[in-house]
Amino acid sequence: MQSVMPALSSANSLLQPIIAFLGPLGSFSHQAAIECFGSANNTLQPEVSFNDAFSAVQSQEADYAIIPLENSSNGAVVQTLDLLADRENLYPDITVSGEYYLTVHHCLLMKKAQDGSGNTSEANPEVSKFYSHPQVWGQCTKFLSEYKGVEKQDASSTSKAAEIVSKDNDPKSAAIGSELAGKLNNLEVIKANIEDDSSNATRFLILQNLKSNRTQGVKPPQKSQSCSTPGSKCKSLISFMVDHTSPGALADALHVFKKYGLNLTSINSRPGGIQAWQYVFLVECQRVYGVHDDHVVDKVIKELEKITQTCRNLGSWEDQLEDSS
Amino acid sequence: MQSVMPALSSANSLLQPIIAFLGPLGSFSHQAAIECFGSANNTLQPEVSFNDAFSAVQSQEADYAIIPLENSSNGAVVQTLDLLADRENLYPDITVSGEYYLTVHHCLLMKKAQDGSGNTSEANPEVSKFYSHPQVWGQCTKFLSEYKGVEKQDASSTSKAAEIVSKDNDPKSAAIGSELAGKLNNLEVIKANIEDDSSNATRFLILQNLKSNRTQGVKPPQKSQSCSTPGSKCKSLISFMVDHTSPGALADALHVFKKYGLNLTSINSRPGGIQAWQYVFLVECQRVYGVHDDHVVDKVIKELEKITQTCRNLGSWEDQLEDSS
Repeated sequence: MQSVMPALSSANSLLQPIIAFLGPLGSFSHQAAIECFGSANNTLQPEVSFNDAFSAVQSQEADYAIIPLENSSNGAVVQTLDLLADRENLYPDITVSGEYYLTVHHCLLMKKAQDGSGNTSEANPEVSKFYSHPQVWGQCTKFLSEYKGVEKQDASSTSKAAEIVSKDNDPKSAAIGSELAGKLNNLEVIKANIEDDSSNATRFLILQNLKSNRTQGVKPPQKSQSCSTPGSKCKSLISFMVDHTSPGALADALHVFKKYGLNLTSINSRPGGIQAWQYVFLVECQRVYGVHDDHVVDKVIKELEKITQTCRNLGSWEDQLEDSS
Repeated sequence: MQSVMPALSSANSLLQPIIAFLGPLGSFSHQAAIECFGSANNTLQPEVSFNDAFSAVQSQEADYAIIPLENSSNGAVVQTLDLLADRENLYPDITVSGEYYLTVHHCLLMKKAQDGSGNTSEANPEVSKFYSHPQVWGQCTKFLSEYKGVEKQDASSTSKAAEIVSKDNDPKSAAIGSELAGKLNNLEVIKANIEDDSSNATRFLILQNLKSNRTQGVKPPQKSQSCSTPGSKCKSLISFMVDHTSPGALADALHVFKKYGLNLTSINSRPGGIQAWQYVFLVECQRVYGVHDDHVVDKVIKELEKITQTCRNLGSWEDQLEDSS
């Protein structure tokens, strides 16, 4: 896709925007950062953990972070949900300001044959051990079913898996990851598109800091039309906790969204961190410009504040799904 | 707890009930099976995967399965949610008929010192590598923060982790798991209760087969009063999918629970498996005997069937939370 360079508003505008993502280089987050922001006019900054990416935006060391929220096959990324739930209020200034759908293709990556012959002619070459991110096993079950009994070793990212294989003395060890991860680690793509579902995609959220002078009012690059075009769709993310001993408290909270005619596009729950079996809910809702009141989310928040224990508006952004699906 | 032996109704009643759980021996699932059913009058049958435990009940090779649904710190066990969602209709006869709350204590487990001196005097002995189930890392973050940089290796269960350590030549390799796992693998408990939260618990669901002659009408052993005692609470689990392109479809489905006065105790969503970004929802609701209509769940299902794409009553059972918390 064509990347749009966001204009910066402050005196620091000569400095390139810094985009934090979960490294190492070659991860799917890196690929999403390249596709969404572009690498020419931005500094793409790999982080060791999701926490570090959140911290970088909170501390304004980074202008944006691009963080995976969910995969179409595997579901939610719970670490991201927990960071968004922000039970310890570590990231009070972080807001979600965009989303990006990345089509995820997995490749079987192995060392280049020393004799230069390559392995590509073999349909399913012998593999002694697989390395990948744990989320990936569930995305390549058909391919992996042909390798019953072969050990699967979790790595912190698909790119780390490729790095491990590149340093492994065993020529039969293999990584599953992106072409980019293979390229950066000098591995060969033995088999491409080994994912179960060719429409396999990961949705990333784009985070920025509400108080940043550099990005305030500057939306991240987004493919689809702006939220303020009539008929365009906007999504908002709201977190809340309810008194779990009060019957109907959750239903009442969800009813507020219905009352204002907002479509619920997703609901996730995570342990609330205060008391066992009490949850924090992350609800994503959708509104249509010109159909819903412009201030509908503020109104929902105001009502939720009355009937919930905690409640936070985590941000609004333009829905990118229709253009990318 | 005292275990209650369920009476079996068929001609096979002389055979002991078979309880499937995720093995190997010494896993937390094993511990839950021992505590909930007892090992004296039951055959406790370890399974290699959650799928195998579900299949054993569906094929009636096992009478019950005891399966972890969620942990109070880590949240839902997504493999269990996916099996309950049963998108391919592999387990049409499985019903949830009970729950069991297991208090989870983790121990640092290492090989017994060869000289018989033991390691217990050291507050934090040197560790070269940790082995445990991936869910455990998030439950022992305080303890593990004292071991920054030490490699953490995922194992398929805490018991498998203990087994790996028992066979490892490195005396500094350590497992994190239950006392039972340590005992069964001849490891020493170097430090007990290393979990962040001493109220850390895992909720297990008990599954049985609707069509089984052996267990039909026989409820699994449950601590708390029966569902038919006035004031007692019952939980039910219902799965459904809604047309995600229809605004308000999810809110409408959830509204049915509110209409009948049912308290929503949890909502989980998982990818629907048909189309990207379409979800199957697993909603757990609670009713009170004597307050709600006895057939309220049937009525909810009937209404949901009209407004959802798929809908299934996954079972009802006595709420065990109040007695165990």
